[in-house]
Amino acid sequence: MEKINLAQAFTTFSDYWSPRVAGDINTSQIKLAKFKGMFDWHHHEHEDELFLVVAGTLRIHFRDRDVEIEAGEFIIVPHGVEHCPEALGDKCHVVLLEPNTTLNTGNVTIDRTVHTLSRL
Amino acid sequence: MEKINLAQAFTTFSDYWSPRVAGDINTSQIKLAKFKGMFDWHHHEHEDELFLVVAGTLRIHFRDRDVEIEAGEFIIVPHGVEHCPEALGDKCHVVLLEPNTTLNTGNVTIDRTVHTLSRL
Repeated sequence: MEKINLAQAFTTFSDYWSPRVAGDINTSQIKLAKFKGMFDWHHHEHEDELFLVVAGTLRIHFRDRDVEIEAGEFIIVPHGVEHCPEALGDKCHVVLLEPNTTLNTGNVTIDRTVHTLSRL
Repeated sequence: MEKINLAQAFTTFSDYWSPRVAGDINTSQIKLAKFKGMFDWHHHEHEDELFLVVAGTLRIHFRDRDVEIEAGEFIIVPHGVEHCPEALGDKCHVVLLEPNTTLNTGNVTIDRTVHTLSRL
């Protein structure tokens, strides 16, 4: 049971779209991820997903609008809602909070699908 | 489905030890709380609890040691582990992430027990 410093933890990996598990809270997990450019459209059949931005700007595209989330802001995307994350700029560090069953690409399986996440 | 700015959200209430529900992620909830001084020793029988500090310093006393958590740091307290939060200084803003069944005072019922949380 050790505390985690977010800024320090983000220095320990450099790949994009590959969330690291930073902790378990019952059946949920906190994950850290670096985003760059556009991801892919997907939704999660059953899992709601929280995105908390800690550095940079995250634009989440929805079918009817976009939302830009800055450092210190979060949004919860309910299950079933199609979304496509896009990092604006070169640095976008995001804390994810979601059930431990959540796959990063939701209902689609692509090259960037990560089936087994590394831990911090 | 609106984003929440943490700094702004913390301006919307002023009472201490009274978490506000800021969102639901399946069976978990994200809550915002202002802490001041010492809380009370307690544990949660079944629920793990994440404390993410966004302003100030939180000291969590455990039976065998203390951990000080600064802004930008988090810790997960597993269920069953006795703990006593203490805010150091005048300003301690904390994001909590825990199952939606979690009572703030865990296994003890005291004046500061909040049975029905307000929402942001």
